[in-house]
Amino acid sequence: MLVERDTDSRLPLHVQIESALEATIAEGTWPPGARLPSEDSLIERFTVSRTTIRTAIQSLIARGLVEIRRGRGTFVLRPQVVQELTELTGFIEDMESMGSESSARLLDQRIVAASETVARQLGLVRGAPLTRIQRVRLIDSGPLSFCETYLPEELGREILPGDPPEQRYADRLLEAEYRLAAVAAHGTAARALGIDSGSPIFLIERTTYAEDFQPVYYERLYYRGDHIRFVTRLARRQPAGSRAKG
Amino acid sequence: MLVERDTDSRLPLHVQIESALEATIAEGTWPPGARLPSEDSLIERFTVSRTTIRTAIQSLIARGLVEIRRGRGTFVLRPQVVQELTELTGFIEDMESMGSESSARLLDQRIVAASETVARQLGLVRGAPLTRIQRVRLIDSGPLSFCETYLPEELGREILPGDPPEQRYADRLLEAEYRLAAVAAHGTAARALGIDSGSPIFLIERTTYAEDFQPVYYERLYYRGDHIRFVTRLARRQPAGSRAKG
Repeated sequence: MLVERDTDSRLPLHVQIESALEATIAEGTWPPGARLPSEDSLIERFTVSRTTIRTAIQSLIARGLVEIRRGRGTFVLRPQVVQELTELTGFIEDMESMGSESSARLLDQRIVAASETVARQLGLVRGAPLTRIQRVRLIDSGPLSFCETYLPEELGREILPGDPPEQRYADRLLEAEYRLAAVAAHGTAARALGIDSGSPIFLIERTTYAEDFQPVYYERLYYRGDHIRFVTRLARRQPAGSRAKG
Repeated sequence: MLVERDTDSRLPLHVQIESALEATIAEGTWPPGARLPSEDSLIERFTVSRTTIRTAIQSLIARGLVEIRRGRGTFVLRPQVVQELTELTGFIEDMESMGSESSARLLDQRIVAASETVARQLGLVRGAPLTRIQRVRLIDSGPLSFCETYLPEELGREILPGDPPEQRYADRLLEAEYRLAAVAAHGTAARALGIDSGSPIFLIERTTYAEDFQPVYYERLYYRGDHIRFVTRLARRQPAGSRAKG
């Protein structure tokens, strides 16, 4: 059932339509992935002009609630996950912060030889044996991220398949170095996330250190670009006013 | 001139070759965009096996120095810009940290009506007049980022075209809220960056606040995904050891 616009409202028509459409999405009549009724159909139902419908929909697009797929119609988008990037958290804590709807699935756990990049991050030589754990994190039963965790083999041996390594080492973890990038999806990550090769991925490379500043594990976290936003606040180091620039 | 491998070295052959190729890149004989000599040519010059050449090149690929373009050869990549994401900086400071090679170009400066998103960030009503400044930041004479800055019109009026707004308000800025995303390039941003639509973009939405917590400007910073990495360090909030997780 479509939410009606409030005919007593003194708000501009397109704002009323926008609110009605938004409420219909929010109450779940049109779930993520659903196609909105055609423009003609909305014009008829609301008895407003095409311009008014278009203005309302443009605003929903700008707010990230719907998108136009050329030649196919206007579709409801999945709400994005917004995650804070202000303190070191682990896989489990990130999941807990997303609420009960999230879950994880173990894809693979095996011993691999360290590549140059991974070896450097963990202070090992190239080719050293590592435990690699591949997991996918799901929200609303769709994949949000594909995570590869690399641990030195002697640490990895203690981890039973399906046992999150973060749980095992949570006591010892001190801080992590993050590298953030936007890359194109490909290979295992694209398949695990169910997206086309070339789709935007928010990639986090994270090396987590223990109290003694020893690297404990190195992770590559591939997030679907369309499903995640990271937020953080940064302050100026020097007090404002003490640095006239120019 | 190709750097020779050190024939007295006791390092594995492929490591020697890797170092020789890296040095040749570093000294600029093969600048970013240059194609490496063919495998056959490298085999001949270094008098080593094909496997050794391939192992050396694989390692350069893993380290982000070169890439294989299928059917065309192996090409030297532009070094990535690594930028810290640990304190609020402005356009000018970011440029200064990149050294003398970076510059900026003003593309457009005009009054526009605030969209819903921009209005919300700046605490204005939709449609309020704003100054929008579009700039492109260049490194090694190629575009790194496309930046849109929105200021309330009364602030924007004080900014002469080509005058960076950050310079004007540097004294008053306190902190900023960052939203980080990976998105597909399109429209103005893709054209300004000289990349194909659909290429990965690292998008930063930044709202910068003054001492009185009033928003001063809102920016959208579109970085070429292949040219930038952001780094940060995050610590656990609670001291390690105080939180055994189950």
